[in-house]
Amino acid sequence: MIVRQTNRHTVLREQLIAAAERTIASKGLAALRARDLARETGCAVGTIYNVFEHLDELVLCVGSRTLTMLEVALAAARPPVPDGSGTEPVDDLVRLALTYLEFAATHTVRWRALFQHRMSEDRPLPEWFVEQHRLFAQVEQPLTALLPQLDRKARRTLARTVFSAVHGIVALGLDEKLVSLSLSDLAGQLTAMVRAIAAGREELRAIDSADTPADLRRD
Amino acid sequence: MIVRQTNRHTVLREQLIAAAERTIASKGLAALRARDLARETGCAVGTIYNVFEHLDELVLCVGSRTLTMLEVALAAARPPVPDGSGTEPVDDLVRLALTYLEFAATHTVRWRALFQHRMSEDRPLPEWFVEQHRLFAQVEQPLTALLPQLDRKARRTLARTVFSAVHGIVALGLDEKLVSLSLSDLAGQLTAMVRAIAAGREELRAIDSADTPADLRRD
Repeated sequence: MIVRQTNRHTVLREQLIAAAERTIASKGLAALRARDLARETGCAVGTIYNVFEHLDELVLCVGSRTLTMLEVALAAARPPVPDGSGTEPVDDLVRLALTYLEFAATHTVRWRALFQHRMSEDRPLPEWFVEQHRLFAQVEQPLTALLPQLDRKARRTLARTVFSAVHGIVALGLDEKLVSLSLSDLAGQLTAMVRAIAAGREELRAIDSADTPADLRRD
Repeated sequence: MIVRQTNRHTVLREQLIAAAERTIASKGLAALRARDLARETGCAVGTIYNVFEHLDELVLCVGSRTLTMLEVALAAARPPVPDGSGTEPVDDLVRLALTYLEFAATHTVRWRALFQHRMSEDRPLPEWFVEQHRLFAQVEQPLTALLPQLDRKARRTLARTVFSAVHGIVALGLDEKLVSLSLSDLAGQLTAMVRAIAAGREELRAIDSADTPADLRRD
């Protein structure tokens, strides 16, 4: 149902996103309750579902803000050399990885919410969310410099994979459950790993599924 | 409070773990409710808290079973060459990574629960859980062959980091939200990335925190 966007509607929508953002950023996804949001914004619980199709949409709006914050931080990750030298692609990759670590360490609760959230009832992720965020785009540029012979599709996929590897090191590294490293040791591990991937990059040219063992070829 | 382990107590404990395991493996962590477990095992809700200190302990018991399943799968990951040749350390690392992917793709719901779970009220993870599982131990052996000069501590830390990178690629790869890759393409990416890390391994010898930018040296 398309709701005519009255002024009141727009204001309430922003208020609800702001209230949800406060909760998710301070207490995490599990603390989000429709009745608390209604109380905080002074609307009825049912009204929330006039403004948002479902609570997932509201969570995605907050997730979208977190992703924008992250994208801004990554875009600002430039080599700290004033004369512009030292912009080796591998250094750019290391900077991006360390910026990601710093973002996750600073905004841990809302950053975790981004990856914890699952759409209810197996709903697909809406187009607007997918279109709006290309989290891996900033990894593509240094990868292009490192592996100019890769075609666009392979490079996009590889950018996701490199981002995923960095994400894994950051996510488990900040999780006290399995790993207990200081933030500076974690940064050291991340730096060494990104440098190793860049140094061994010739192996990344061979990316296709031909070498996959048959028992993993399922789809 | 130490409860005397009567037979009835032990039986109920096993029944509760089995019931929790069925729920977590089929519906995930969020579906776990004390009242459902009580109904399923025919005990009172309060009785659960005579058997387990808190629900976290029950969840960890299920997590422990998942980790044991994973450790058995990883231990069985041997190169598929009948004459025993081809046991290069890099091939062992690739096999371990692909086995991890296969495990996660097969047991997705209970595997996700392992990483979603957070101890309530900032309780520390109990000693028995930490002692019982050394998830990274199997990664250490091929790493020792690749980087014999690393000392034991550096090798243990690096094993965690390599595991974390593999975990990130698998976790985001199986998450339809950010990445949409076929399982065989994902296996190809994982293989190439592990091979690149192994090929660039000289960079991993330099692991220490000296190169960490000052703004990330916080602790």
